[in-house]
Amino acid sequence: MLALRWWPPGAQRGEHLARKRIVVLGATGSIGTQALDIVRAHPERLQVVGLAARSNLELLAAQIAEFRPLAACLTEGTAADQLQTACGAHTRVLAGEEGLDALARMPEADLVVGAISGAVGLRSLLAALDAGKDVALANKEPLVAAGRLVTAAAARTGACLLPIDSELSAIFQVLKGEDRGAIRRILLTASGGPFANHSPEQLARVTPEEALNHPTWRMGRKVTVDSATLANKGFEVFEARWLFGVSFRQIEVVVHHQSVVHSLVEFVDGSVIGQMGLPDMHAPIQYALFHPERVPNELPRLDLVAAGSLTFARPDLERFPCLRLAYEAAERGGTCPAVLNAANEVAVERFLAGEISFTDIPRISEQALAAHRPLPDDSLDDILAADAWARQHARQALRSA
Amino acid sequence: MLALRWWPPGAQRGEHLARKRIVVLGATGSIGTQALDIVRAHPERLQVVGLAARSNLELLAAQIAEFRPLAACLTEGTAADQLQTACGAHTRVLAGEEGLDALARMPEADLVVGAISGAVGLRSLLAALDAGKDVALANKEPLVAAGRLVTAAAARTGACLLPIDSELSAIFQVLKGEDRGAIRRILLTASGGPFANHSPEQLARVTPEEALNHPTWRMGRKVTVDSATLANKGFEVFEARWLFGVSFRQIEVVVHHQSVVHSLVEFVDGSVIGQMGLPDMHAPIQYALFHPERVPNELPRLDLVAAGSLTFARPDLERFPCLRLAYEAAERGGTCPAVLNAANEVAVERFLAGEISFTDIPRISEQALAAHRPLPDDSLDDILAADAWARQHARQALRSA
Repeated sequence: MLALRWWPPGAQRGEHLARKRIVVLGATGSIGTQALDIVRAHPERLQVVGLAARSNLELLAAQIAEFRPLAACLTEGTAADQLQTACGAHTRVLAGEEGLDALARMPEADLVVGAISGAVGLRSLLAALDAGKDVALANKEPLVAAGRLVTAAAARTGACLLPIDSELSAIFQVLKGEDRGAIRRILLTASGGPFANHSPEQLARVTPEEALNHPTWRMGRKVTVDSATLANKGFEVFEARWLFGVSFRQIEVVVHHQSVVHSLVEFVDGSVIGQMGLPDMHAPIQYALFHPERVPNELPRLDLVAAGSLTFARPDLERFPCLRLAYEAAERGGTCPAVLNAANEVAVERFLAGEISFTDIPRISEQALAAHRPLPDDSLDDILAADAWARQHARQALRSA
Repeated sequence: MLALRWWPPGAQRGEHLARKRIVVLGATGSIGTQALDIVRAHPERLQVVGLAARSNLELLAAQIAEFRPLAACLTEGTAADQLQTACGAHTRVLAGEEGLDALARMPEADLVVGAISGAVGLRSLLAALDAGKDVALANKEPLVAAGRLVTAAAARTGACLLPIDSELSAIFQVLKGEDRGAIRRILLTASGGPFANHSPEQLARVTPEEALNHPTWRMGRKVTVDSATLANKGFEVFEARWLFGVSFRQIEVVVHHQSVVHSLVEFVDGSVIGQMGLPDMHAPIQYALFHPERVPNELPRLDLVAAGSLTFARPDLERFPCLRLAYEAAERGGTCPAVLNAANEVAVERFLAGEISFTDIPRISEQALAAHRPLPDDSLDDILAADAWARQHARQALRSA
């Protein structure tokens, strides 16, 4: 394990001691770069002590030059030497999964931003929680695949899971000060994606370019496609279940095209409380980084009068089977959610590569789920094995398609 | 002062000790009867120890027979003897303002429901707070006329003011767990009343019957007329200012015809949180009675999909000058709000009596405000004098009209 215990130069003057020290895993992605925007806007409150990226050497080097973290990591490729040359002696350069794990556990960090995409973020998330770090989490796949293990790890060390997803952040904000036993239902809002009004025939012809053009949110590629299939909403059902300790049946998805109401909670006394805002991920990221404090900012403000009509509708599970599959995997339990997530990850990659159609994505997930014999979800090895099995199954399904 | 220290018969068995003991001032009105509905639905949690009404002997007697309070009071008329005969030895019958004051201070009470209509509720509200009683408050006029004194009385004894108004309850619920310093703005929603689309000419011809027919809320007569003129929304601006410690300029009114979103708070980080529900006063009354606990109930549930479009618009201060006058009285400060409230009370009475037109209501308030030379708002005597002066002024304005 990495043992970085020195203080940055300014610390001697005491001025850095009150800053929250953060590690960003997935620093060059959509959430990672926006998290660094927040740090840039609040240098007196936040300090970057670690940065990790998968393969974007150039951007990571620029981030290191700007934020001067104690350590940085590239998890793929062999560019670590290049990176060390680029960033000088202040930053220790690490590589691979071991480097990521060391960053997640960095003794100098107060908070880890989990902004990796995919179930690949599971190990570093568990490492951070195991080390007692609070985690601002955008990376939802680990909660889908291994929600029980993730929340148990947090409970064991007392680490906090702070959601970054706008819907989950909305619920988290609404529940502040409330007794979780008073939740009757969680209402997750869904923009419906760019194809909300497409016929089945039109859906079959959707191109990757069309799928990457989300009507209201600017996000990473994987989550944008998941938003278009509603798989993303299904994954948020898992996030809500594990983050807030409710049952799957207490979570309802409602289509809300305007993306103004980010989600709502209905309490046992009938009161419904919803959080709203403009669709800008900086807002929930900031909330997670400063929690429990609300910090003033200059983000554009929601004007409800200008927002026009707000509407709500039931999702169409026939045209968007990914959401139905999420509830089915939840109902079957055990390793089924891990299989659903892994098959979907493979399917989305192949769709973006132009190898399969948009409507093949749920088909591949459904086949993997149907073929899977689930085990309980309390063993990391079983979950990783199910994940690997499902990826294999999804790739074979593609070849025979 | 009244000294009732005995326990009701069941108390010996210990079963009553955990119940919240409540006094309802204004028991026979709209809020009072609905508060008693909540008690009726939760006999294991709530117990009525005192009931007061203005003049409805018959209903008060029936309530006494059902709830067997320790004490009851009729503030007007000379029916106290009749009442004593009707209700037997269990309940001590009081009369007049002194009786009301004694009920407000009852040592056996944990919570006082302030459901009187008009500034006449001020003395008993101050008495309850002075005695350290938490007050579930529907009676908004005392906060308009004497918000500084009322909140100072609560602060002195540590008594809680729990709003019953649905808009104020919404804000109160949203602020649970939040730092009040994090409030950027409060957005008070207004249904717009039954005449939202009336022309000035149509408004001048509105009858009392039309004004009493509110599109979404069933309420008492005074508040229903105030809702139609938007005076009620102006009064809620005062309630919000005093209950939540914000400045008047942080409070904005937004017209929301559907009455689904009961009000919202915008925080300094741009997050907007709103509370929603069906328009049923039982919900906010229950919230106030059980605060801080949310208790399950069988009230009809909000279905956002069935609710249709939610819309928001700016209020029209030209057609509804009562709201403008509230902000003007707030700006001038001192005893001006007391004058505005008193002149409005007289004007509404006269409108309901068929003596003046609907559009005379703001005219009379505006004339009283224009003629008033305000004093500071930290003396009860000055406020009561301003109130009396304004009533006199408003009655004269009517005679000369």
